[in-house]
Amino acid sequence: MNATPVSPVLIVGSIALDDLELPSGAFRGVVGGAATFAALSTTIFAPARLVAIVGEDFPQAPLDRLAERGADLSGLVRAPGKTFSWHGRYAENLASRETLGTHLNVFADFKPRLPSSYADSELVLLGNIHPALQLEVLSQVKAPRFVVADTMNFWIAGENALLREVLAKVDTLVVNDEEVRQLAGCHNLRRAAAAVRAMGPRHLIVKRGEHGAMLFDEAGLFYAPAYPLESEVDPTGAGDTFAGALLGYVASHGLNPINLRRGLLLAGAVASFCVEDVGTRRLEQVTRAQAEARLAELRELIQL
Amino acid sequence: MNATPVSPVLIVGSIALDDLELPSGAFRGVVGGAATFAALSTTIFAPARLVAIVGEDFPQAPLDRLAERGADLSGLVRAPGKTFSWHGRYAENLASRETLGTHLNVFADFKPRLPSSYADSELVLLGNIHPALQLEVLSQVKAPRFVVADTMNFWIAGENALLREVLAKVDTLVVNDEEVRQLAGCHNLRRAAAAVRAMGPRHLIVKRGEHGAMLFDEAGLFYAPAYPLESEVDPTGAGDTFAGALLGYVASHGLNPINLRRGLLLAGAVASFCVEDVGTRRLEQVTRAQAEARLAELRELIQL
Repeated sequence: MNATPVSPVLIVGSIALDDLELPSGAFRGVVGGAATFAALSTTIFAPARLVAIVGEDFPQAPLDRLAERGADLSGLVRAPGKTFSWHGRYAENLASRETLGTHLNVFADFKPRLPSSYADSELVLLGNIHPALQLEVLSQVKAPRFVVADTMNFWIAGENALLREVLAKVDTLVVNDEEVRQLAGCHNLRRAAAAVRAMGPRHLIVKRGEHGAMLFDEAGLFYAPAYPLESEVDPTGAGDTFAGALLGYVASHGLNPINLRRGLLLAGAVASFCVEDVGTRRLEQVTRAQAEARLAELRELIQL
Repeated sequence: MNATPVSPVLIVGSIALDDLELPSGAFRGVVGGAATFAALSTTIFAPARLVAIVGEDFPQAPLDRLAERGADLSGLVRAPGKTFSWHGRYAENLASRETLGTHLNVFADFKPRLPSSYADSELVLLGNIHPALQLEVLSQVKAPRFVVADTMNFWIAGENALLREVLAKVDTLVVNDEEVRQLAGCHNLRRAAAAVRAMGPRHLIVKRGEHGAMLFDEAGLFYAPAYPLESEVDPTGAGDTFAGALLGYVASHGLNPINLRRGLLLAGAVASFCVEDVGTRRLEQVTRAQAEARLAELRELIQL
C-alpha cells in the first residue's frame, strides 16, 4: 500500500551509562545517551545507522537489542576506557534537574568516522554534541536531504560561531524554549523563532516538555500537545526520543509539511513512553502499534 | 439561522483600580478587576449581568462603556469609600508577578445582593472572590443551569471547607495548574484533575497561560493551545477574560460538549487580545469578527 521507500536514519550522539537520582530512587549505570534514545525511537519506524562510541565497561546486551531492532552498528566504536556518563538529580516534580557531574571518558577523544556504507544517508540526526563534531559528521555524508540538529545552552554560549555554521547547514533545529530564546537573544517565542530560522534552519521545532512542541516553518505554525501521563518516572532522554521518532516517522512516511506535522504529534506520543520508566526500560518495549494508538489519543485531544 | 436563544451571563467579581508595574512602565489607577475583564469579554458574544461594587473614586466612563456593550449594571453598587485596588509588579518576561499590595477598600463590606431581575439567570460566572460570597450569590439564583467558578491559592489554603461547598455546587471550575495541584494535593495533572472533579465540578478547566488550557470532563480530555503573541504587554485579567469569553460563547451558541471545546479555543483567542495592551485597553476594542478570526488562526495551529 505504502510505496514510500523507507530510508535509514543516520544518528550521531552519545551513548552513556548514567547515574540518576530520581524521586523514585537512585539508579547507577543506567544505559542512556542521546544516540541510544534516538535510535530506540527511530527504529520503531525505520532502520537507523549509529555513529557513537562506548567504553570497555558498556554491556553488550543493549547493543544487541539495538541491532535486533534494525540499528546498523558498523559506525559504533568500542574504545579503551570508560563510557561517557552523566550524573543528574531531578526535583520531586521532575520539572527541573541539576547536573551533578559529566564524565566524558571515551567521548573526550571521539572523532566520528562514518563507514563508507553510511555515506549515502539522506536523513541525518545530529544529536546534541560539540558543533565541530556535528560538522564533521555532516561533511562525510554525500547528499543529505533532511538534516535535523539538536544543541544546548553550553554550545550556544561557548561555541556560538561553530554552532552558526551548523545552523547554516541544517534543515531543522530541535531545541527547547530556553535554548531558542538564548540563541535569538529575545524572550518572545514567535520573534525568537523567526530570528533562529533566519540563521538557516527552514524548520524550527521548539520542545516544551509537558507543554508539547511547536513547529515554525514556511507553512506557518503548528502546535502538538504533549501526551498527558498518569505517571511520570524519568524524563531523561525524552527530547532525544522525540527527535528520533520524528525522523523515523519521516523516514517511513516521506518528507512533506503534513508528515512533519503528523511526525511532531507522533514524536510527542513516543517521547511520553520514554518518561514512564527509568532509562530506556519502557521505550525498548514500545511497538509501532502502541505508538500509533497513543498518536490517535493525542489527535483526539485536539479534535473538535 | 441560529435558533439558540442567547442567555445573559451573571457575573460576580471585583471591579478595581489597579497599580501595575510592567516591563513597559508603571501605570496607576488602571481600570481592572475580575468582573470587569469577564464582562468585557462575555459581552463580545452575549449580554452580561454584573454583580459588583465600586467606590466613589471609580470613573463613570468605563461603566457607561460596559452598559453600551450590553452589560446590565443594576446589580452594581457604588459605595462610600475607595474602589478595590491591587498593586502588582511583573517580571521582565511577564511569566511571574509579585503582589505589592491588596487594598480591599469598599470590597471589604461587599454583600452581594442580586436584583430580582437577575434571579432567573441560567449561566453564572463566580469570579475569584471569597467562597462565602460565591455561595451567597448562588443561593440567590433560582435555577442555575451552568455555573462556572474561579478561585485561588488564598482560598484553597484559608477557606477550604467553604470552597468545598462551592465545588459541590458548580458545574465547572476554572483554575491554573498550580491551583489544581494545590487543591488535589497531587502534582500529576491528570490525577489531580480526577481528584478535583470528584469534589463536584463535572468540567475542570486548567489554564496554563502561554501554554494554553485543558478541559477534563466526562467526554475525556481536550487541549486548547494559547494564541502565540508577537507582543505581550500586560497579562492582568487574562484569566478572567478567558472565563468570560467561554461563558459568552456558551451563552450564544448553546451548552454541549462540542461548544464547550470550541468555547475553550475561543476563550484563548479572546484572552490573547487582553495581553496586548495595558488593562482593558485592547480588550475594549475587540469585535466579534476579530475574536472569530483569531479563533480560526488557533484552529489552524492544530490542524493536520
